[in-house]
Amino acid sequence: MNQQFEKKELKKKSENLSDWYTDVILKAELADYAPVKGTMVIRPYGYALWETVQEIFNRMMKTKGVENAYFPLFIPHSLLEKEKEHVKGFSPELAVVTVAGGEKLKDPLVVRPTSETIMYAMYAKWVHSWRDLPILINQWNNVVRWEKRTYMFLRTTEFLWQEGHTAHETEKDDMDMVLAALEWYRQVHEDYFAVPVIYGIKSETEKFAGAKRTYTIEALMPDGKALQAATSHNLGQNFSKVFGIQFATRDGKMDFAWQTSWGMSTRALGGLFLTHGDDNGVILPPKIAPVQVVIIPIRKKDGDAKTLLARCDELRETLTNSGVRVKVDLREEPSVGRRFNEWEVKGVPVRLEIGERELSADTIVLVRRDTGEKMTVARKELLMTVQKLLNDIQTSLFAKAKKFRDDNTRDAGSYEEFKKIMSSTRGFIRAFWCEDAACEATIKEETKASTRLLPVKAKEEKGTCVHCGKPAVHRWIFAQSY
Amino acid sequence: MNQQFEKKELKKKSENLSDWYTDVILKAELADYAPVKGTMVIRPYGYALWETVQEIFNRMMKTKGVENAYFPLFIPHSLLEKEKEHVKGFSPELAVVTVAGGEKLKDPLVVRPTSETIMYAMYAKWVHSWRDLPILINQWNNVVRWEKRTYMFLRTTEFLWQEGHTAHETEKDDMDMVLAALEWYRQVHEDYFAVPVIYGIKSETEKFAGAKRTYTIEALMPDGKALQAATSHNLGQNFSKVFGIQFATRDGKMDFAWQTSWGMSTRALGGLFLTHGDDNGVILPPKIAPVQVVIIPIRKKDGDAKTLLARCDELRETLTNSGVRVKVDLREEPSVGRRFNEWEVKGVPVRLEIGERELSADTIVLVRRDTGEKMTVARKELLMTVQKLLNDIQTSLFAKAKKFRDDNTRDAGSYEEFKKIMSSTRGFIRAFWCEDAACEATIKEETKASTRLLPVKAKEEKGTCVHCGKPAVHRWIFAQSY
Repeated sequence: MNQQFEKKELKKKSENLSDWYTDVILKAELADYAPVKGTMVIRPYGYALWETVQEIFNRMMKTKGVENAYFPLFIPHSLLEKEKEHVKGFSPELAVVTVAGGEKLKDPLVVRPTSETIMYAMYAKWVHSWRDLPILINQWNNVVRWEKRTYMFLRTTEFLWQEGHTAHETEKDDMDMVLAALEWYRQVHEDYFAVPVIYGIKSETEKFAGAKRTYTIEALMPDGKALQAATSHNLGQNFSKVFGIQFATRDGKMDFAWQTSWGMSTRALGGLFLTHGDDNGVILPPKIAPVQVVIIPIRKKDGDAKTLLARCDELRETLTNSGVRVKVDLREEPSVGRRFNEWEVKGVPVRLEIGERELSADTIVLVRRDTGEKMTVARKELLMTVQKLLNDIQTSLFAKAKKFRDDNTRDAGSYEEFKKIMSSTRGFIRAFWCEDAACEATIKEETKASTRLLPVKAKEEKGTCVHCGKPAVHRWIFAQSY
Repeated sequence: MNQQFEKKELKKKSENLSDWYTDVILKAELADYAPVKGTMVIRPYGYALWETVQEIFNRMMKTKGVENAYFPLFIPHSLLEKEKEHVKGFSPELAVVTVAGGEKLKDPLVVRPTSETIMYAMYAKWVHSWRDLPILINQWNNVVRWEKRTYMFLRTTEFLWQEGHTAHETEKDDMDMVLAALEWYRQVHEDYFAVPVIYGIKSETEKFAGAKRTYTIEALMPDGKALQAATSHNLGQNFSKVFGIQFATRDGKMDFAWQTSWGMSTRALGGLFLTHGDDNGVILPPKIAPVQVVIIPIRKKDGDAKTLLARCDELRETLTNSGVRVKVDLREEPSVGRRFNEWEVKGVPVRLEIGERELSADTIVLVRRDTGEKMTVARKELLMTVQKLLNDIQTSLFAKAKKFRDDNTRDAGSYEEFKKIMSSTRGFIRAFWCEDAACEATIKEETKASTRLLPVKAKEEKGTCVHCGKPAVHRWIFAQSY
């Protein structure tokens, strides 16, 4: 770790979430600011998390036969313009290459903000018959959206993501895929990130430019704001009609393919950091932590360093052989205390300490990152204890975040109540809404809260809009958002 | 497979290498042309190869502690200009973003052609003491170099690659890293791609813009042209001095970091396709083939399809459990013969056929893709036979390519001989060269052959330059190149 620091120098999460967030991301060496405004460098420790996400998600996609591929970075502006809603949605955010190879380009090239247009131009070339369907392709790549206000991981002008793009024979296959992707996103967040999410349908205003319907998963951050963590779009036949992805059906007719697209980005990591950290740094859930256990030998000047280091190595091997991701911190400086702090900032779930005393007692000291709880165990019980601890920490992080989310999800029966919540604790609000875009806009203007989603399983009810009082049939989820 | 075709429609490798190459890449569905000139789509079957390369290479890098990270796509033009040789080398090939978010940019952004400048600006921020070294970072990303003449995989305006960038305390560590990377590239090519390579040092003219010394591995293609397959650069202190990557040494002085950079791109896959294919399509070496064995049930109209498919599934399981990558082709059309052709075009190393006859005899028919050899084996011997075959094919592809390379590596004692070789068979030429750049340029102009490399272990000799007759101490390798 390059930047050495005292614990007291860390910004406090309990005092200012935003200052803390930037501070711990830099100090945990997850990322750093890059020379171009709004961009960042994802450092090895942060990138290792993204590699784990890739592994997890590749495995999930494989169960449905989705394969990875790579499509070009540059999209001719003329191609992007084909789907009117789509280009309208993305136009303000585009980065455009106008000069290449020393010459001014006739048709400027847009740096992809997303790849629907270029991918579907290819799909049209590849699909002729129902036998060519489904097309199930994903790509892991970088995209660019020129944002005015940026924020590490959560909103950067360039970000990494996966974008899945499928084409199907039937509307049913299409919907199955949309919901499968949504379920994968839920699993990544809840089962690995320990970040509880709600999921549902976006309003017409908030849906993806060009989609028939957008599904979203959203998490609640500690400041009571929602984070849209991933989206899955039912594109229907909107794009296939524009790009001519047409096929001969099984019964000899012609039809346009039914399509989906779905994406999750490095933004999700931002949600993870915000959710679990504390005043001592980030806290990484064991299932995705690049280092799950750090072993720190406590060397004494006149001690038997050789035996101590051999023991550390032996412990490392025992744990590694059982699939635990371990690091032994062999540095002689900075001081042990400082190094404890460093690993805490980096959010390593479990710290093992071993010194002369432990050596002679044949014990090891374990410290939980999430609670700070310290325990001494016999060496032969180490593996079992570590495995149990990792499991406990994972479960406990989720439970804690879920409690916060549940405590901060409220029903608002009146607009007064709605405004009161949004100007104090914030959080998710469940409220009837008439589904009129003008009404939605007014609520947003007055309370900064937007519609987040209509839960997938929301039942129809009889109610009146929390803002305008007109008849409403669904309770929507509202929140201020990142 | 979408494009159905007759075998006879395939272009012949034996007639025209270049036409064949493009044809099989399209028909094997490895890649396709994309809407922007000079770019391509890497389709799932081609991308699976790249994913395997990533796996293999990540494993190699880990042995030296190199970690993956991600740096931004856009480099401010002003930053790129810092290293004079470097910017001069890349300027003609740059793609430049001049407009973003609807506004003209004051400092245009270059789409990275390589990442030395942006990475080293960060390294300067991170390195203060010898304790911060080494920095061992790699990234897998996309880069853009605006090329006039493009060629699928071998030269596209955008390509995927890995770029490793390290910073060290000493010149010795630096050289160790340069050679380690070169050795990894050799292993990827020889041990996995079955592509024999020669390796050595680039001439001053041919070295990387900004490097102190460039090491290269080069393979010989079937048309007698060399392919530069990967390079590893000793940057010395060139960049660290310009970017200020300075550190306090162990003995309390200040020094600039010693650096390396090294890269291998999707171009290497092009070399692989060119090397092993034949008139029936590409041939993929078993170690990297996404599908190593394809099982094709030969169904009869009145046959017992259920038993046949159950048998196929059982064979798949037996092979998969032993780590063989298997696909069962369950399609009912096109015809079996056509499907044989399709899998041949895709270069799957081994084909298994099983029909009524094999069912009742408890045998399986195996066909080798590289030789076309057909054999019938008892079911219980299948696994052993497949494993042996995969091994044999890997070895035999390498041996065949190596023989071609050796047969086409010639000594040229005179310039007449040199010219004669280059205007007929081509291939590698070993010849004395005076190491004068003007002489090198003339040779290139007159024979299209450039210096490829000076072998790492070349001994000093007494000779005269094959072109100008002046004293020369080394035999260099010359070739025409891609």
